[in-house]
Amino acid sequence: MHMKKGLLIVLSGPSGAGKGTIYNAVLDRLPQLKKSISVTTRSPRNGETDGVQYYFRTVAEYKRMKENGEFLETAEVYKNFYGTPKAPVFEMLERGEDVFFEIDTEGARQIKEKYPECVSVFIMPPSFEILENRLRSRGTENEESLVTRIGSAKSELAKYRQFDYIVFNDDIVKATDEVVNIILSERCKISRNVGKIEKMLNTEKTEK
Amino acid sequence: MHMKKGLLIVLSGPSGAGKGTIYNAVLDRLPQLKKSISVTTRSPRNGETDGVQYYFRTVAEYKRMKENGEFLETAEVYKNFYGTPKAPVFEMLERGEDVFFEIDTEGARQIKEKYPECVSVFIMPPSFEILENRLRSRGTENEESLVTRIGSAKSELAKYRQFDYIVFNDDIVKATDEVVNIILSERCKISRNVGKIEKMLNTEKTEK
Repeated sequence: MHMKKGLLIVLSGPSGAGKGTIYNAVLDRLPQLKKSISVTTRSPRNGETDGVQYYFRTVAEYKRMKENGEFLETAEVYKNFYGTPKAPVFEMLERGEDVFFEIDTEGARQIKEKYPECVSVFIMPPSFEILENRLRSRGTENEESLVTRIGSAKSELAKYRQFDYIVFNDDIVKATDEVVNIILSERCKISRNVGKIEKMLNTEKTEK
Repeated sequence: MHMKKGLLIVLSGPSGAGKGTIYNAVLDRLPQLKKSISVTTRSPRNGETDGVQYYFRTVAEYKRMKENGEFLETAEVYKNFYGTPKAPVFEMLERGEDVFFEIDTEGARQIKEKYPECVSVFIMPPSFEILENRLRSRGTENEESLVTRIGSAKSELAKYRQFDYIVFNDDIVKATDEVVNIILSERCKISRNVGKIEKMLNTEKTEK
């Protein structure tokens, strides 16, 4: 095992909070962060390669993986299944690499349950009004589905307590800085450095 | 009460680890951090004013304060008493101000015991050899007291587990950055933002 295990960082929040924008901005700042590749049962689109954008699997294969407990989290979206496979994520963490996820609050809940050492960050929209405006300005949805999305965003907001940190996205630069700071400071937690410290203390004791 | 309580941040570590240098560098970066003023029984030196460098008190007054539980931590150094009075620190925290301490590991232990919400950071020298060289290069001590100090620094090192974070001081700029990051990210902890979030959620609910 690597002397210092990597961090698993989960970025979440209601849709319209801006987590996708922050996620990409954080990756620009900390390019050593690893993404995970999801398993999906949907068909590959033009230009998509198995193992690059997704691992493409049949429904039968997906269900077998799920039954074997091979997922950190799973979800069904428009009749297709999506899941994060445990094995590659845990291998990266053991190598000391930090893995960074962007995921909805239900996925974040599942990951925290299966891997409590993960660091979870909730992106909060500055207000309900702004959240509503952001969802509305995407302009891709009719009023009915918009009302549903706003309703579900509000109920997602109430789930903030299950997270470790909260970042208010009233300014994208400030919010990105805060997520970067959280990742850097989590690396300084005592619990994540016991191996390194004990090695140092023991080496010195042997030398003297 | 202020909507968001301030943070109490404790910077500690063995002597020779460089915590004093880092402490001052962090104050330069985050000038809004408040220092606390200690109570002492030693006599004021030229130019020192009561309530500025220290609160100067008689031994009788000090003992009465200690018996009344008015200190966050106390210590005896060369026959003089030093202590951090609780009241002014707690008033700053209630006002939402962050208070920043530099203190030895025994003082840090007392503060954590009396105020578990404090954020404690342990400054680690890069190696025992460097620690020894730093103590030696101060040149203010004879070999006997130096050996005592090195021995006590080593036993202080073993106390790292009681701290929340560890910062390796192999580079002063990097170490300062890390302490700054820790302070900024601790402000994003969910537990420190419940009041602010609940207020936002409740305001919106009333409006709708």
